[in-house]
Amino acid sequence: MRVCVYADDRLGALAIDGTIVDLTDLVPPNTPVPERMNELITRWHAARPVAHERVATGGGTPQADVTLRAPQPRPRNIVAAPVNYHKHQAEMGGESGVYQGREILTAEVRKGFLKASTSITGPDGAIELPWPDRRFDHEAELGVIIGSTTSRVSEAEALDHVFGYTPLLDITLRGEEDRSFRKSMDTFTPIGPFIVTADEVPDPEHLDFWLTVNGELRQKSNTSYLIYGVAKLIAVYSEVMTLQPGDIIATGTPEGVGQIVPGDTVILTIPQVGELTIPVVARV
Amino acid sequence: MRVCVYADDRLGALAIDGTIVDLTDLVPPNTPVPERMNELITRWHAARPVAHERVATGGGTPQADVTLRAPQPRPRNIVAAPVNYHKHQAEMGGESGVYQGREILTAEVRKGFLKASTSITGPDGAIELPWPDRRFDHEAELGVIIGSTTSRVSEAEALDHVFGYTPLLDITLRGEEDRSFRKSMDTFTPIGPFIVTADEVPDPEHLDFWLTVNGELRQKSNTSYLIYGVAKLIAVYSEVMTLQPGDIIATGTPEGVGQIVPGDTVILTIPQVGELTIPVVARV
Repeated sequence: MRVCVYADDRLGALAIDGTIVDLTDLVPPNTPVPERMNELITRWHAARPVAHERVATGGGTPQADVTLRAPQPRPRNIVAAPVNYHKHQAEMGGESGVYQGREILTAEVRKGFLKASTSITGPDGAIELPWPDRRFDHEAELGVIIGSTTSRVSEAEALDHVFGYTPLLDITLRGEEDRSFRKSMDTFTPIGPFIVTADEVPDPEHLDFWLTVNGELRQKSNTSYLIYGVAKLIAVYSEVMTLQPGDIIATGTPEGVGQIVPGDTVILTIPQVGELTIPVVARV
Repeated sequence: MRVCVYADDRLGALAIDGTIVDLTDLVPPNTPVPERMNELITRWHAARPVAHERVATGGGTPQADVTLRAPQPRPRNIVAAPVNYHKHQAEMGGESGVYQGREILTAEVRKGFLKASTSITGPDGAIELPWPDRRFDHEAELGVIIGSTTSRVSEAEALDHVFGYTPLLDITLRGEEDRSFRKSMDTFTPIGPFIVTADEVPDPEHLDFWLTVNGELRQKSNTSYLIYGVAKLIAVYSEVMTLQPGDIIATGTPEGVGQIVPGDTVILTIPQVGELTIPVVARV
C-alpha cells in the first residue's frame, strides 16, 4: 500500500482506481495533526484491514486534485548512514574529492548521525538554500520508516520492524561544520510522495534508484551496493538507540553527489518505491 | 518558577512551601503524556498566572514523597555545541588529549550537532553504559529549553525565546564514530530535576557550575567562559533550523571531562538552576 499525507494534513492511501482514499479516521480524532502518521503506524496492525478495503474499493479524490505533503512530517528521530557506498567514499576523498586528501571513513566506523526532525519537507515543498556563497549537494537515498518500538534487534529480524520505504534526499552543506549540522537545516530532508509499506518491497537490499538534476542523470545505483544494508543499519542503530514507530533511517548515498543551485529541479526515482520531484530555491 | 514532571508523568512546580503542586490540568486532557511539557511551554503565557498562584499557595505533595522525572521527556530536537570552552578544546587535543595530535575545532567552526530525542533521561533514571570495553565520559553543561517557535532570531533578541534552564549531562562515547552517534545512545542526555524559568535566571551567561563523580570534583567552570554564549548559540542554530517550544540546546562542556564507569554517582550542580544526581550502571 502507498500511504501519504495530503490536502490539509489528512492521512490517505493510493487506491486501485488512482484516487486518494481518506484514512484520517483510523487514528483518534484528538491526535495532534503532525502526529497522525506516527499514530497510524503505531496502530497499523488494526488499521491495515480497513485501509486495504478502502484501497480496493477506491472512489476517493483523484490524485491530480490533491496536494501530497511529506508522508511523515514528525519523526522523533532521523538517523542517517554516513558514507555507506564505496564509490561515494572514493569520490569524497582522493585527489579530486570534496574533502580531498582526507581519510573518508564509512558507516563501518562512523556508524550513524542524526538529522533534525524539523528538516523534513515533502513533494509540496522546496529545498531552500540559506546562503548563496556556500556549496549545497544532493544526496539520493532510500528512506526507511520504522514500524514498531525497536531496541537491540538482530540483523536477521530487523526488517520485521520496518513499516515502509520512501524516496529521501539528504541535502548537505559542504564545509567544516559538524556533519549533523550541515544536514539538519530546514527543508534538508525531502521525502515522499508516498511511503510504500514493507509488504510491497520484499527485498529492500536490491532496489535500483537514480537521481536527475534538470533532467541530467547525476546518481544511479542499487541498494545492493550498500556497505551496511538496510537490516544491518537497523540492527546497529537499535543496539544503542530505541527506534520509535515513524522514525526514519536514511540509508546513505551512492557516487555522483553534486551541487544544486536555486532554479534546479531534482527528481529521485526508486521504481519500486516512488518518484520525488522537488525544486531548489534560494531562501527569502 | 521550577517546573517538573513527576509521579505518573504529571506536570508540576515547586511551591513556596516545598511541596510539588500539580499543573497537569493546564494542558488539554487529550494531550499525549510525553507531549505535556511541550504543550505547557507552548501555552505558558496563559498558564503562567495560574501556575504562579498555585506556587504561592502551596499545599501540594511534599517533594520527598514524589519521584521527579526528566522535566522535558520529548523535545523535537536536541541541538548541542561541540567544543565550546577553550580549556576543553585544549584538553581534547594536545599531547595528552583523548584525541591527541588532532586539530580540535570549536563551535566557531563546527557550529552544532544533533542528539537523539530518545537519549533523554532524568533524576529517576540512570546512565546506562552499553559496552564494558569502551570509554564513556561525563560532560557537564547548562541546558537551555526553548520557549517559542524561533527562526532566524538575532543574538540581541535570542534570550526572549528561552523558556528556562536545566542541568544537562552530555554523556559521550569516545572513539571514531560520528559525534552525533556517540552522544545519542539511550540515557545519554540526563536532565533535571527542574526547569527553572528564564525570569529567575536573569544572566545565563554568568552561571557557576561544577560536577563531581563519587564526591570528587571533576569539572568546575562558569558559562561566561563559553566561546559561543547562550544567546549566540540560539542565533546560530535558529539561522538554519526552526527551533520549537521545548527544544533543548546543550551549551557545551568545560575542561575536566573524564571517564565514568558502572557504580559511579555523578552530581551536576548549577546553584541558580538545580542539582542533578544520577548513577552510572552497566546496561543489562
